Amino acid sequence: MRHDNDSSVPSARRPARVLSRPLYGSHFRRYGLVEQSRALCAAFSLPAAKTASMDDLTSTSCLEAIRWTGDAIEYVDQRLLPHDEVIRRAATVDEIESAIKTLAVRGAPCIGVFGAYGVALLRQVLSDDEAFRAAVRRVRDARPTAVNLMWAVDRVLRASDMVAEAQAIHAEQRAIDARISEAGAEIIPADARILTHCNTGPIATAGGGTALGVIIAAARAGRRPHVFVDETRPLLQGARLTYYELAQAGVEATLIVDSAAALVMARKNVDLVIVGADRIAMNGDTANKVGTYSLAIAAAHHGIPFYVAAPRSTFDFSLRSGADIPIEERPADEVTSYGGARIAPEGARAYNPAFDVTPGHLITAFVTEYGIIRPPYAESLPDLELRPNLIAVA
Amino acid sequence: MRHDNDSSVPSARRPARVLSRPLYGSHFRRYGLVEQSRALCAAFSLPAAKTASMDDLTSTSCLEAIRWTGDAIEYVDQRLLPHDEVIRRAATVDEIESAIKTLAVRGAPCIGVFGAYGVALLRQVLSDDEAFRAAVRRVRDARPTAVNLMWAVDRVLRASDMVAEAQAIHAEQRAIDARISEAGAEIIPADARILTHCNTGPIATAGGGTALGVIIAAARAGRRPHVFVDETRPLLQGARLTYYELAQAGVEATLIVDSAAALVMARKNVDLVIVGADRIAMNGDTANKVGTYSLAIAAAHHGIPFYVAAPRSTFDFSLRSGADIPIEERPADEVTSYGGARIAPEGARAYNPAFDVTPGHLITAFVTEYGIIRPPYAESLPDLELRPNLIAVA
Repeated sequence: MRHDNDSSVPSARRPARVLSRPLYGSHFRRYGLVEQSRALCAAFSLPAAKTASMDDLTSTSCLEAIRWTGDAIEYVDQRLLPHDEVIRRAATVDEIESAIKTLAVRGAPCIGVFGAYGVALLRQVLSDDEAFRAAVRRVRDARPTAVNLMWAVDRVLRASDMVAEAQAIHAEQRAIDARISEAGAEIIPADARILTHCNTGPIATAGGGTALGVIIAAARAGRRPHVFVDETRPLLQGARLTYYELAQAGVEATLIVDSAAALVMARKNVDLVIVGADRIAMNGDTANKVGTYSLAIAAAHHGIPFYVAAPRSTFDFSLRSGADIPIEERPADEVTSYGGARIAPEGARAYNPAFDVTPGHLITAFVTEYGIIRPPYAESLPDLELRPNLIAVA
Repeated sequence: MRHDNDSSVPSARRPARVLSRPLYGSHFRRYGLVEQSRALCAAFSLPAAKTASMDDLTSTSCLEAIRWTGDAIEYVDQRLLPHDEVIRRAATVDEIESAIKTLAVRGAPCIGVFGAYGVALLRQVLSDDEAFRAAVRRVRDARPTAVNLMWAVDRVLRASDMVAEAQAIHAEQRAIDARISEAGAEIIPADARILTHCNTGPIATAGGGTALGVIIAAARAGRRPHVFVDETRPLLQGARLTYYELAQAGVEATLIVDSAAALVMARKNVDLVIVGADRIAMNGDTANKVGTYSLAIAAAHHGIPFYVAAPRSTFDFSLRSGADIPIEERPADEVTSYGGARIAPEGARAYNPAFDVTPGHLITAFVTEYGIIRPPYAESLPDLELRPNLIAVA
């Protein structure tokens, strides 16, 4: 691993509740080839992405999504998983913004932690206030749907010691994830057959994970869940990251194409659906990875409980309903190309929304670090706003 | 084009109603490269597939899905579209069975026409009755969900002149498709925004198409439809074939990932959904490409009409409900690989159902060559069985 300045790394304060065992196994692991990594990078149509070279390929015995080094942020390039565990380094506003925009860093809470360190780093290197403010705006706007990013950036900006504040956000994230997993215990019966979408595991939160954290915790408690994993087109976070994280954790899983989810609900005795969230409005309307809305409709049709696991920071207390959430549109070629090869005819038009909005009335309950929050959301969610932040009660 | 024995080709009798203009444009067209074709072949994980070489690459001014040459069946390899228009030749039971199993020939009606010619061909070359019967069984069982295949094979087997019977089935298919398109006119309003799944165009039926035929006919009648095309994972028939056929026909289209369909229904003013079918039971339960069931649930949730366009031969009058339709499972690596590169971790398990079953109560109406058939299906579908076959009324 490339740690240029290991001796100067301030260690993040780890609260007692942090999961103690590393989630990524203890051995050097690399399935793929450099060529395969390049093909995958191309497959995900990320124009700004730097493809991996042998120099970039480093591996670690304990893969952390985000790591502060004192003069840079190291992060796992999530586009190359599960084949290559590549640690990259962001030290400029260009590198920070690009890591978020190209989805090398993804998962709303993980983006929040990354953005927090990013702002602290920029304050160190940009003495000019105007230049700093302009740089912060670029970071804050890099992913419009990720409310955690704006929340974390604003919180760091208000602090006197920005690095300490970013580290506190990171430590809280770990503690919050652990409490979400505990809270979720009651909704996962023994031998549960669970369906999930996109990726909400440790790699997505820089902690223990939200929806996937709940599932992994249930497995550790001996409840033997079986997980149906939506592949999650177009960027295949389910096939690449969720399946990988479940395999690492020893949880049984079956991969399916997204459109098979309704059939699986009808014929495979699914007990519950659990997903993460990017932004939640006060009536429970939830923005999350495109396909979530379709799953929620299908779950309601089959009478299957549909849960959303998310920290308090994902709730936007200023937002009355999901109608006001902008739908981020991503480049068409994520849809028109496939595995690096064009699939649709030359010039094909595509609509590529990154998110959709699931109405609160389709959501059985939210799993948060404050416990399970049930309808009516018009009463229970404003109550969440009034609770003190975890740091005050931990 | 390679027509070894053009002089001996018996011309198929074309009934008056056949669409007169070729659907595939008048110019040599080839977007791709041989390399791209190889990558695509690999992408679709078709183990028995022969990848294209320059020798195989032929093109034609009028691409017909199926063509009888007297001693072989020529067919378009649908796995290579839209980039390469490759005509292949099946002359043995191995080649016939493989073309169906590898999805080089696909689309239930097209498989039916292909299987009909296949049986006629096998009778020519296999004088031994036992060998012939064994070969027919292999062809008849090559795609268990395609009721048209069994229907067409059985019909040819009953005929005294098998070649003439296969040609009659092909000619009827063209006439039936034209009548389905006419019948569908009443359900497509001007400027309709239509959502469709998989591929049901001319290439899928060896005629004018079913669901896509209805849409193309509406466009020709000046009704300016706009079509949202589901890409249709895992084999991407929507992105590859439907988008291609719509572009050929000059119909405006937008490609989406399958899981974005519900969002598109909610926010893009979709007027109707129309899809094809592989097998329809007497209560209206419909087996079709996986993802159809999910779409039907979402359409019902949004109050959007959901139509199924299919010829009478797709209705299985012996089947009381969809509960008895076996779900064909295809190889896991169609899901775990992507663009020729493995996506999910090594050894990942996947469930890859080719079809799902949409209950009749979610289907607004069926569009058939006998007109629109509406609920209650328990009354209207048995009535369809009693109507004479098209050949008798044409």
